[in-house]
Amino acid sequence: MTDVMTELATEAPGAIHSTFRVSRTYPQAPERVFKAFEDTELVRRWRVEDDNCDVLEFAYDFRVGGTEVSRFVFPGGPEIRLDAQFQDIVANERIIFTYRMMAGPVLLSVSLSTIELKRSGRGTELTFSEQGVYFEGVDGPKNREDGTRFILEKLAKALVD
Amino acid sequence: MTDVMTELATEAPGAIHSTFRVSRTYPQAPERVFKAFEDTELVRRWRVEDDNCDVLEFAYDFRVGGTEVSRFVFPGGPEIRLDAQFQDIVANERIIFTYRMMAGPVLLSVSLSTIELKRSGRGTELTFSEQGVYFEGVDGPKNREDGTRFILEKLAKALVD
Repeated sequence: MTDVMTELATEAPGAIHSTFRVSRTYPQAPERVFKAFEDTELVRRWRVEDDNCDVLEFAYDFRVGGTEVSRFVFPGGPEIRLDAQFQDIVANERIIFTYRMMAGPVLLSVSLSTIELKRSGRGTELTFSEQGVYFEGVDGPKNREDGTRFILEKLAKALVD
Repeated sequence: MTDVMTELATEAPGAIHSTFRVSRTYPQAPERVFKAFEDTELVRRWRVEDDNCDVLEFAYDFRVGGTEVSRFVFPGGPEIRLDAQFQDIVANERIIFTYRMMAGPVLLSVSLSTIELKRSGRGTELTFSEQGVYFEGVDGPKNREDGTRFILEKLAKALVD
């Protein structure tokens, strides 16, 4: 191999910067929706646990400067690890957090997420804005947007329980 | 005050999402430019210290999962505090970090920053991409972009020392 080829071979996959926004209205009040993000046991139940998913670790410290670590596996898949940092919390109104996602040793993404809650009649309009960095050939924003819609659907079901 | 006015008065300032990108070419090789972000003493000297600035704290742990805390004051101003988390480090190629900026008790911004280094002849093209959340009436992306250009100019001077 030439020097140039060596250099190409060791180069990290290129970074893709992308922003998406998903909105959804829930019939429950902002206080109830906020609680689903604030209460560790609720978060574990509606967002982390899943029929097909084995949760290896879930540590959730919901305060500014606090962190989340979640590790889980789907059958036959690599360990997925999420490391999040809570950056801003305004009760019943806003949560800003950053997070890193890994699949085994592979970095999937780094994200800055803003959840905004607005009273809408007797319910809540939730807006999820995600500014993310993804990596060529590894993962992209389309998958994450689909995943976010899926999570917000899970939340709708949890709120009626 | 009516209930509606109370509600408006206690609402957090609205979030503004914005992305900017600044590029700059340095005559030094990527290894030299990367070192200016890797070496704690170098970082302190070129990026944190300033003639008009009193550095109250600087703790820099440059590894994935590591953090930076910087606290400083300009004459007559509030304490500025930066809390950063290193999210991805590829030696001589890329640094991804998130950070929160406060002025006294006021949150100025939360950001996701990607620094990419590409060899360009004998020098380095540095691209700084910042995906940020700012707050209405507090701070905006224009200031941060100006500040980033200022920092990259300081780096140019530090690299010739």
